Order: sequence, then structure tokens, then C-alpha cells
Amino acid sequence: MKKSKYLLILTGLLTILFGLCSSAWCTEIDSIIEVQKYNRSIHIMAMLIAGFGFLMVFVKKYGRSAVTATYLLVSISIPLYILIDGIGLFNGPAISEIDKLIFAEFAAASLLICAGAPLGRLKMGQYILLGLLFIPCYALNEWIVLGNGLNLIDAGSFKDTGGSIVIHAFGAVFGLGTIISMTTKKEFDQPIESDATSDRFSLLGSMLLWLFWPSFCAAVVKPELVPHTAINVILALSGATLATFFTTKALHNGKISAADIANAALAGGVAIGSTCDTAGFSAAFIIGIIAGALSTFGFAILQPKVESVLKGIDTCGVMNLHGMPGILGGIAAIFIVSGIDLGAQISGIGITILIAAITGTITGKIISVSGRRSVSYNDAEEFDL
Amino acid sequence: MKKSKYLLILTGLLTILFGLCSSAWCTEIDSIIEVQKYNRSIHIMAMLIAGFGFLMVFVKKYGRSAVTATYLLVSISIPLYILIDGIGLFNGPAISEIDKLIFAEFAAASLLICAGAPLGRLKMGQYILLGLLFIPCYALNEWIVLGNGLNLIDAGSFKDTGGSIVIHAFGAVFGLGTIISMTTKKEFDQPIESDATSDRFSLLGSMLLWLFWPSFCAAVVKPELVPHTAINVILALSGATLATFFTTKALHNGKISAADIANAALAGGVAIGSTCDTAGFSAAFIIGIIAGALSTFGFAILQPKVESVLKGIDTCGVMNLHGMPGILGGIAAIFIVSGIDLGAQISGIGITILIAAITGTITGKIISVSGRRSVSYNDAEEFDL
Amino acid sequence: MKKSKYLLILTGLLTILFGLCSSAWCTEIDSIIEVQKYNRSIHIMAMLIAGFGFLMVFVKKYGRSAVTATYLLVSISIPLYILIDGIGLFNGPAISEIDKLIFAEFAAASLLICAGAPLGRLKMGQYILLGLLFIPCYALNEWIVLGNGLNLIDAGSFKDTGGSIVIHAFGAVFGLGTIISMTTKKEFDQPIESDATSDRFSLLGSMLLWLFWPSFCAAVVKPELVPHTAINVILALSGATLATFFTTKALHNGKISAADIANAALAGGVAIGSTCDTAGFSAAFIIGIIAGALSTFGFAILQPKVESVLKGIDTCGVMNLHGMPGILGGIAAIFIVSGIDLGAQISGIGITILIAAITGTITGKIISVSGRRSVSYNDAEEFDL
Repeated sequence: MKKSKYLLILTGLLTILFGLCSSAWCTEIDSIIEVQKYNRSIHIMAMLIAGFGFLMVFVKKYGRSAVTATYLLVSISIPLYILIDGIGLFNGPAISEIDKLIFAEFAAASLLICAGAPLGRLKMGQYILLGLLFIPCYALNEWIVLGNGLNLIDAGSFKDTGGSIVIHAFGAVFGLGTIISMTTKKEFDQPIESDATSDRFSLLGSMLLWLFWPSFCAAVVKPELVPHTAINVILALSGATLATFFTTKALHNGKISAADIANAALAGGVAIGSTCDTAGFSAAFIIGIIAGALSTFGFAILQPKVESVLKGIDTCGVMNLHGMPGILGGIAAIFIVSGIDLGAQISGIGITILIAAITGTITGKIISVSGRRSVSYNDAEEFDL
Repeated sequence: MKKSKYLLILTGLLTILFGLCSSAWCTEIDSIIEVQKYNRSIHIMAMLIAGFGFLMVFVKKYGRSAVTATYLLVSISIPLYILIDGIGLFNGPAISEIDKLIFAEFAAASLLICAGAPLGRLKMGQYILLGLLFIPCYALNEWIVLGNGLNLIDAGSFKDTGGSIVIHAFGAVFGLGTIISMTTKKEFDQPIESDATSDRFSLLGSMLLWLFWPSFCAAVVKPELVPHTAINVILALSGATLATFFTTKALHNGKISAADIANAALAGGVAIGSTCDTAGFSAAFIIGIIAGALSTFGFAILQPKVESVLKGIDTCGVMNLHGMPGILGGIAAIFIVSGIDLGAQISGIGITILIAAITGTITGKIISVSGRRSVSYNDAEEFDL
Repeated sequence: MKKSKYLLILTGLLTILFGLCSSAWCTEIDSIIEVQKYNRSIHIMAMLIAGFGFLMVFVKKYGRSAVTATYLLVSISIPLYILIDGIGLFNGPAISEIDKLIFAEFAAASLLICAGAPLGRLKMGQYILLGLLFIPCYALNEWIVLGNGLNLIDAGSFKDTGGSIVIHAFGAVFGLGTIISMTTKKEFDQPIESDATSDRFSLLGSMLLWLFWPSFCAAVVKPELVPHTAINVILALSGATLATFFTTKALHNGKISAADIANAALAGGVAIGSTCDTAGFSAAFIIGIIAGALSTFGFAILQPKVESVLKGIDTCGVMNLHGMPGILGGIAAIFIVSGIDLGAQISGIGITILIAAITGTITGKIISVSGRRSVSYNDAEEFDL
């Protein structure tokens, strides 16, 4: 009897110790996983600031402006998104602090995509205004399609892990909306020139986007899915890069367009977004190939037609890089993700495009009230050179 | 009785197993946390090598020299700091191997800040000499204010997590000390020219600093504080970037100075250093705004006055980017950190400035003995073009 | 008796709980360690895409081509390596998914090194062909010397953690093999020109390689060895950078060659590869110094002699940056690693050089059949400018 009392106490102590330790370990492991997300959030920041920033430096006389605009767009959007989340206006999908940062960065990415359309035709202060108007619209759409905001879609049933639809297509369509009001006739006659140096800077930005893209798509996936997601993204980007090379040669009489390489090579990353954690390697590579070819085709053939319909110039061709490949990615999920909720997927795509088109067009009208640049695509108007 | 003996053995075995496992897990978790610090150390290296390196490429004819100088400054300072730590001359705050690397990088950062002041007026070999003289002085100050070297301040009571004072203000004041001896009258008449390409490179360097800054401030904080610290730093940088935009327009007749954007946008990162892990989000954003405005004001208004007083040229304006915002950050801690040791905080700031000013001025005199460049701000003198 | 039955059950439950938890934790910790490797794989990707890409932009008229070639080489090699591994043709050293990605990146790195030799004299499509031919040869050698493919070397006894031999020397020797067939007499008279902008881009690429190099060497080492490995690599790079500075001045009449700085500064990273996780700090620093001096000597003195023997131009001087320092690193292991298997180390070096020389020469012959550029080192031939 004495011994079993002793054993009882010992077992009890062991249980408590065990419970305490396992709880401490869990907390510690949770912190470690959050720090790993933090690492990916820095990779995303590299894409936002240096990647998007320098990709847009291809306009040869507008380099200082493009990177300054990038700085301003990031600096207005991240605090604003965190503020909107903080006051609980729209309950975003983020729970932990680092998730909030990552979803704020996603919003900033979508804004930068959007800003590529009117790039060079906004005054510097108007980029800030664009950010102020864009972020609430983005948060509204995110709340509806990812957060089950209006109960139109069951939370979690719309598949868009890496944001093909919510980030890329939303930003691109919003941007196309703004250019309807933010393009003058004169600007249609004005060439958007690049040179050897601006092309090299643009390719640098492209490369920074390419190489950090796996962290964008894997930002909030569980640790055990990160490696597979990363390889999928790299295969999709590789497929797009190869497809861009062959397509650009086919569409430019055997010559290569540096702008196609800098841009369409990234279309694989855009298109794999929705299925980055679910696709197999072959599917990822094939999605990349299709996206690269589609994007290059968009730059060479479709863009002039779209621009004449919209009566607006899409400076960076965001329709080709983010719009079409994004929608392709959202649709690809229907064929790839087993047991997908077809209605939710189509609703998510449709609602996003609709909200982006409406709010983008209205935003363009509002910004156009605040005035126009006198000279487009040129640092000289606003910089002290 | 037989059963309870069996139970006793079982419980004993379980305890041993449990002890072994928990010890193995702790070791494993410690290694994992060290590797997470390693990741941040690489981010800091990106700031040192590519960030500071290219920020200084704004001098249009001195680009190869600026990046070569960066290479030399990093390559001399990190081994030297590790050597000084290894022989136990000053017991730095580092315990683990990765901590040693991070504190060595902090020393290199301070040296690079310092070198921004005489940039373009030192011979290449003199940058190495500057590093050899700077690092022991830096380690001395670090030992006194962070490591309780002379018992002037209780260890840990001076708050400077991200180095507003110890890294930024020290480097800047040391640099101002050196230029007293390292500027000729002729150089006051010589413009320091930039062009579109050098500006774009400088903005690239600026962006690399901006985006990796959270890892600089969070380098040695505990895992559970990394997310909050990171968001604080990003908010401070965002605030500074926006403030810089409005201030530069106000001070340049409605035009933007690209140099202000490239530099003052970073002042938020400098100023949040002391309180990066303790401030709330709003405080971080406000510190950033004040730092950005102060730094821009420094570049536009104060710098010529300081230069004429010191009879020295501060090529990169380190006083404006690192000096004043650093001191601002150290003082801000007094208002933000609850239960702060006021005496320790003021002593830490005062001692650092004093040591930097004295050792910097002496170092300038020593270097000036080793000769002068014949042409300033120009690769052609020393490079085989 | 009742109590001890109760205790028996309690202890049994505890054991099961404990077993479950420890297994769950182990899985979770394994995932975390894989994600940490993922982080290093992204750093390596930064080296491949932006690092190698921009290092090769030093050819002033060939910048768009150099980075496009980099994109194509990475995009063909990583999927191809993963495919070869997937079908089990050669059993590579990778086990987990993220290991496969890292070893695929190593293969891509070796290919990029190789491509530096004929750079500027291949048509864009020929870079893809080079990748298609190179990767199986690389995988064959990797299988033989690292994977014990033909039982020539015991698995694991050949020391080459960071790939001095298997990655760097293999790629360089293979590249030298290709140029025998891929250089015309006319090209010997054609200067390979750089200018201030191409030099700055090249130095940017160099810096990205330098700063992420610790992750290349530490990619697959155990967590507890990552910090020591990282510091070794940084010390080796620092040593090489300082040695390059003094050697380039000595060999260029007191002037500095920007190309030497951009390239030879990296030789420390190449040479420390074999012993990055085993060397002490002093040995690492010394290996770096020797490698930097050797590499600079190669660029200035040996390269013309080798080129006239091979009747081929080594555009990027891969023999000097990757060939000689790589072999130096493999040999250094003999003196540094205690208890090294001398036969295995020498066999590994010898087999690698032999396979690279034979397969490289054959590959050059095959590629030369597919035609020749009419103008070398110039974007204009293939880009739509």
C-alpha cells in the first residue's frame, strides 16, 4: 500500500511535469513556426519593394518615379491594411500578428499590380490616393470571398492559396478600371521607351520576383507543405520561362523581346497560386507552360486590342501578366483540386472580378478629379534633378 | 508486491526516457532557434554588402569604388571583431557562435555608416585602415554601455535593441569626427554628382536596406517577439517614407529629391531601433514619421551649416540619416519603455556620443597622416579602366 | 491490488500519450528543419538567378542576353534534374523533397558556372541545349562520387560538403571542354568590353553571391553545424576579398581591376566548400586568402596562356574563379579534415575532373553542330531592340 501511494504521487508528478513541458514546447514550437512565416514575409517584402519596384523601371526616363511610387504604395498600404484589420472593419483571414503582416503584404502586392496599369500617368501624390482608395476595396473583396463576409461562399471552400484570383486578378482588373479615366488621347501617341540600362534594371526586378515567389505562395501554408509548394512554384516558373522564350521568338519574327522575358516568365508564379499546395509536379510545370505562352501572346497580340476598347493604356501590361494568368490559375483549380466546391470556385472568381472592375472604375474617376500630369513617363516633371 | 515493483521500474524507465527526450528536444530546439538567427544574419549581410554598398553608388563616377570599399570594410571588420572577441579583449554581449556573427555584423554596419561621411575622399587602402582603427573603438563602447564594462551602467538597463545609439549614432558621430581631418578646401567647391543610373542604383541599395531592416532590429530578440518587432520596424519605415515624401516636396519647392527618398525613408528604421521590441504599433508609426521629417530637414537645411562648422564634408549625410534619427530613437525610449532606467539611458547615449567623437577625431588625424587622394569622388584614380 | 491495477493503466496511458506526443513533436520538428532548409534553398536561388545572372552582365552589350540565358539555364536544369531523380536513373544523395530541390539547385549552379566559359558565343537556344546535355553528365558524376554509384568510392568518404569539387570544379572543367569547339579565331581579336554601368551590375551580382554563399555551403548540413559553417564561409570570403585587393594592385601596377574584385573575392567561397563544416576559423580565413590570391593571379597571368593552349576563350574566367579555387578546396580537405580517407578524396577529385573534361569536350562538339552566332557578345543579334 505504501509503495503504491508513492507510485501514485510519482505518476501524478510525472503527469504534471509532462503537461507543463508539452505546453511549453508547444508554445515554443508555435513561436518558431511564426518566425518561419516571418522569414517568408521578408521574402515577400523583397518582392514588393525591390521586385515590383525595379520591374517597373523599364520606362527609361521614369526610373526614380517608379521606385519612389513603389515606396509610397507599400508605405501607405501596409499600415492602412493593419489599421482596417485592427478596427475590425472587415475580419480578414489573419489570426496571429505575423499573419496580419503577410495579408497586409498581399494587399500591397495587389495594389502594386494595379498601379502597373496607370504607371507613369499619375502624379506622385496620386499613387498615395490610389492606395487609400484601393486597400478598403481589396479588404472588402478578401472579406467576402476568403472570410465568408456575406455568406456568399463557405469559408475555406474557395481555393486560392497563393492568390491567383484574390491578389493578381483583383489587382489587374482594378488597374484596368482605373486607366479608363487616367489616359489621355495624347498619351496613345507617346511611346513608352526603354533602353539597355532600364531593361537590365527591369530584368533585375523580374528576377527578384521570380526567386522569392515560392515564399509568396507558401507564406501561410503549414510547415509540412512548404517544400512541395516551393517546388511546384519553381516548376511553374521554369515552365513559364521556357514557354515565354519560344513564344516570344515565334511572335517577334525569331527575335526575343526583353520585356516579354522580364514579365511573362513570371506568369507561371501567378497561375500556380490557386493550386500551389495541391498540384503535382507535372501539373505545376504544365500550368506554368500554358501561363507563359498565354501571357506572351497577351503582350504581343491582345494588349493593343484591349487598350483600344478601354481607351486606356496598360503601361506594364498587367492584364497579360496578372489578369489572364491569374484567372487561368483560378480555373485550373477546378481540374486539379479533388473534391473542389465548383460553385464556390466560380463564385470566388466572378465576385472578385466584378468587385475589382466596379471599384477600380470608380477609383479611376475619383483620382482623375485630382488633376493630371502635364508630361507622362518622365521623372523631370516631379523630381528635383 | 510484484506488480508494484514492476510499476516502480516502469515509472523509473519512463522518467529517464522522458528526461533524455526532453533534453534532446531542448538541444534540438536551441539549434533551430540559432538557425533562425542565422537567417536574420544573412538578411543583415544583404544590408551590409548590397544595401549600404549600392546606397553609396549615388556618386556617379565613384560606383566601382563605393562597392569595393564596402567589400573591404566588411571583410576587415567581421574577422577583426571575431578576433577581438576571441581573445577576450572586450567581453561583448554575444554568447553563441551565431550571436558573435550578428554582433560582428552590427560592428560592420556601424563602420559602413561611419565610412559614408568621408566617402570618396579616402584611398582604397585607407578604408581598410579606417576599419582597423574603428572596430576596437566600437568594441570598447559596446563593452562599456552594453556589456557593463566599466560598471558605469548596469548591464541590460540601457535599452537599444536595434542599435539606434550603439550602431547608428556611434557610426555617424565617429564619421563626423574623421571628416574634420579628411576634407580639403578644394573639395568644398567640387560638386558630388549623381545621374539617372547612379540614382537608380542608390535607390536599389536603399530598398535592400528598407526591406531587410526588420531582421536587423529583430536579430537577437526572442522568437516570440520577432513578429511584433518586425511589424514595428515596417510601420516606422512606412511612416518615415511618407513623411520624407511630404517634407522633401515642402523643402524643394514642390519637387522631390531622389537622394532624400533613398536616404530619409530609412530614418524610421534607425529611430525605431531602441524601442523596436517594446513600442506599440502607433508609437512605432509616429516615431517613423518624426524621423523621416527630421532626416529630410537635416539633408536640406542643416547639413551645409554643420559642414561649415566642422570644415568637413559629410558625403552621404550620415548625420541626417543615422546621427539625428539614432539619437531621436534613443531618447524616444525614455517616453515609451515603461520602467526605464533614466540614468542608464541618458548615460548610454552620452557615453556613446563622447567616445565616438573622441575616437573618430583621433582616427581621422591618424588616417590623414597616410596621405590624400589627388582626385576625389572618381574611380579613375585607383581603378584600371 | 485495485490501486496497482489503476496505476498500471495510468502508466500505460501515460506511455502511449508520451509516445504519441514525442512522435508528433518529432514530425513537427522534422518539418521545421525542412522549412529551414527551404529558406537556404531560396538563398541559393538568389545566387543562381540574380547572383550569377548579374555577375555575367559585365559584358556591356550582352546584358539582356546574359540574364535571359541565366533564366533559361535555371529553368531547364531544375526540372530536368528533378525528372532524372524521379525516374531513378541515378540515385542522387537527396532523400526529402527539399533536399531534391537543393541538389537540383547545385546542379543548376554547376551549369551556370560552365556556361560562363562560352558566354556570349552561344545562341540563346544553345544555352538550353547545353543544359539538356550538361545535367545528365553532372548527375552521373554526382552519382559516382557522392552516391557510391560504381563502388569506386565509399559513400560519404569523399568530403565536399559545399561542392568545391562536384559543383565548382566540375562546372569549370566542363566549360573549358566546351570552348574548344565553341570559339572561332575571329573571336580572339574581339575585345569583351565593359563600362561603368555593366561593372556596377556585375558587382551587384558578385555581392549577391557573396552574401548568400553561407547558405549555399550550409544548405544540407545539420542545424547544429549551420552557425559554424556560416562563419567559416564568411571568413573565407573576407580573406579572399582582402587578398584580391592586394593582389590585383600588385599585378596591375598599383591599380585595381573591377573584374578581379567582382570575381576573385568569391574564390574564398569556392575553396572553403569542401571543408566548410569541419575547418576552424583560422584555417577558413587562410584558405580564403590563398584562394583570392590564386584566383586573381589566374585572371591576370594564367588565363591568356590557358586560352591559347585550348584555342578557346573563357569569357568569365571560370577556370580562375571556380576551377583552381575548387581544386584547391578539395585538396585542402586532406590537410584539414582529421581521419580523412586520402584515397577517396583524391579519387573524388580525379574522377570529377576526368568526367567533366570528357563530357564537356563532347558536349562542345555536339553543340557546335547546331550552328554559330554571327556576332558575339551582343544583344542585337537575337533581341528585338
